[in-house]
Amino acid sequence: MPHALTLNAGSSSLKFALFELGDLSGAPAVRITGLIERIGGSSHMRAQRADGTTISDAPLPPEEAADHETALGRALDLIGQERPDARVVGVGHRVVHGGPDHAVPIVLNAEALEKLRALEPLAPLHQPHNLSGVRAALAAFPEAVQVACFDTAFHRHHPWVNDTFALPRGYYDKGVRRYGFHGLSYDYISGRLAEIAPHLHAGRVVVAHLGNGASMCGMIGGRSIASSMGFSALDGLPMGTRSGQLDPGVVLYLMSQEGMGADEIADLLYKRSGLLGLSGLSNDMRKLEEAGTDAAREAIAYFVFRVRRELGGLAAALGGIDALVFCGGIGEHSVHVRQKVCEGMGWIGLELDEARNMRGETVVSTDLSRIRVLVIPTDEEIVIARAVRDMLARRG
Amino acid sequence: MPHALTLNAGSSSLKFALFELGDLSGAPAVRITGLIERIGGSSHMRAQRADGTTISDAPLPPEEAADHETALGRALDLIGQERPDARVVGVGHRVVHGGPDHAVPIVLNAEALEKLRALEPLAPLHQPHNLSGVRAALAAFPEAVQVACFDTAFHRHHPWVNDTFALPRGYYDKGVRRYGFHGLSYDYISGRLAEIAPHLHAGRVVVAHLGNGASMCGMIGGRSIASSMGFSALDGLPMGTRSGQLDPGVVLYLMSQEGMGADEIADLLYKRSGLLGLSGLSNDMRKLEEAGTDAAREAIAYFVFRVRRELGGLAAALGGIDALVFCGGIGEHSVHVRQKVCEGMGWIGLELDEARNMRGETVVSTDLSRIRVLVIPTDEEIVIARAVRDMLARRG
Repeated sequence: MPHALTLNAGSSSLKFALFELGDLSGAPAVRITGLIERIGGSSHMRAQRADGTTISDAPLPPEEAADHETALGRALDLIGQERPDARVVGVGHRVVHGGPDHAVPIVLNAEALEKLRALEPLAPLHQPHNLSGVRAALAAFPEAVQVACFDTAFHRHHPWVNDTFALPRGYYDKGVRRYGFHGLSYDYISGRLAEIAPHLHAGRVVVAHLGNGASMCGMIGGRSIASSMGFSALDGLPMGTRSGQLDPGVVLYLMSQEGMGADEIADLLYKRSGLLGLSGLSNDMRKLEEAGTDAAREAIAYFVFRVRRELGGLAAALGGIDALVFCGGIGEHSVHVRQKVCEGMGWIGLELDEARNMRGETVVSTDLSRIRVLVIPTDEEIVIARAVRDMLARRG
Repeated sequence: MPHALTLNAGSSSLKFALFELGDLSGAPAVRITGLIERIGGSSHMRAQRADGTTISDAPLPPEEAADHETALGRALDLIGQERPDARVVGVGHRVVHGGPDHAVPIVLNAEALEKLRALEPLAPLHQPHNLSGVRAALAAFPEAVQVACFDTAFHRHHPWVNDTFALPRGYYDKGVRRYGFHGLSYDYISGRLAEIAPHLHAGRVVVAHLGNGASMCGMIGGRSIASSMGFSALDGLPMGTRSGQLDPGVVLYLMSQEGMGADEIADLLYKRSGLLGLSGLSNDMRKLEEAGTDAAREAIAYFVFRVRRELGGLAAALGGIDALVFCGGIGEHSVHVRQKVCEGMGWIGLELDEARNMRGETVVSTDLSRIRVLVIPTDEEIVIARAVRDMLARRG
């Protein structure tokens, strides 16, 4: 039975899923989803079936998750035991950076891999991990088609004013652009919106992907026009541990007044800032909501304020707004954050229905709200699986 | 006759004005305004009377404007010849940075000056020049009261969410905050709005100070709530030669991939970016509008787009918007920029009257526009002169 494996390799994690592809004419059917965390440390694997039942939820011995290669091996063992009939004909990879050229998924071979390696300077903290996942999969499935799905691809048709910074032109030409990320999630939301609310899909929509990484995307007709993220995964909204929007003068200050180097500043802005830095407590919104300390409340207030400010900015970039969609861990689950974001947006005709919001319904705006507000669980894995299916179908 | 002198020292320029103070109960009356440019280079002095007639408009010999001290001496000679009866009892200084503590003007003495010198790391490109102007004036007018008016002061009551970045708390405590600048200009506009349109002054107003330096300020009840500028004079809108908003990841890229140091990056972002960098032609909006090349048009389009995006973001920060005010060189004089900014903002109920805009009237929105759009020439000098008058009046 032909299957697709999807891999999403983070700096110390590996998310994987197995999809049954059938005859390539229908939707890929998820069979297993799993996550290995803290690779190289006190590692843990969770995996479950499509019906939600648990296959595994246990620590891994250090030697079984020493690096991404061994972690992938462990995931494949589990898949082999659970689905001995599964023949992996395609592997889909989430790759954070496709550079200026890739607006669609591509088939990976040695040459393509080398080109993606050349983009590592654009995403030094993410791209190398993604590509080490690719190398491990190439070794494990030499016969399967390997497909790269780029987080930047969905944004590659931004108008120029939202693709550039105000730097000398040469920097744009050498790739210093506003790429935008979380493209697989936005792609999924765009498709889902086309199914459940085609009139909104055709209009001006802002999608707030709020998770441990967070960004927002402005779409018209289901296509990305603008993003809160720019060149790197640092810009825009504050995140679990990332700063979000930051005056470049602050980086200059850290260099010249605090004597910090690039690695130290990257460590500060990627790993010690955001909700964690402001709260001094945690990068996890759930923990901050439970904590209820002043600093935790202020961290949440800052997060909410920046979402609103980006929402206003993106609405201006779109020339107006017809719908707001929440997704991602926080967007899908935090009743409080959704409420606070919407509370200050009555001025553009956005009215939240508190009871619907509390129940987490798909539509959480009131019937009379001019702007529809939706909560749509996102699914990056199915977007990758579809790309694998389409690539296989095209190759015949 | 008691007079106030106002000084606004830039990196290579000195703006000065003389005001008659009368009995300190009325408005200071401007008598002379002047500007010495390119101090230390091929210097030039222009000065005029209140009625617009020219006192001087000629190059200065190098020895008369070798530095800010000699330039100030030259300005004082001109004032002495033009107004031999003027007794300078107070000197007001525009000082870019007042740090976290100063929300109002202060009297300068040796101790206060030393404290402002300690803020130089927060504004290394501006503060030292401001303070060298102060030292020159202290030497020239040892008996006069010296008053510092801070560009940051007007913004010192921002709500916390708009005063902080999402960094570990210690950075806020040590002064890494969203200060905001152009406060003297916003202060003037706020006061003028209270005179000509008190109902708007009481409401939610975004002021766009668009000049060679450019920022925007969101006010409620005439007080600053949010600014597009943050920690430094780099953030927010693109400017003549400054980048404006920039992903901090770009600075990390310049450090680690291009091997640039803090001084090189500061030079790039402060002096070679913005309209100049994008157009490859000029930092001057008038020249770009005349040039009509593709790159010039794109630079203007980017500028306009970022003004709109900040406008949406600031309106969200205010919870809505009742009026937009244009000021500064570009804001007061560019019919085209005002038109393009407003063109995309119909979605919030903003409608420009093209004929009024063309004529540069005070109100340039249509009678039916929900949001009033105004053009108000700003005047930082009178704000400084008033501060000097008030300080003298308080001292009796």
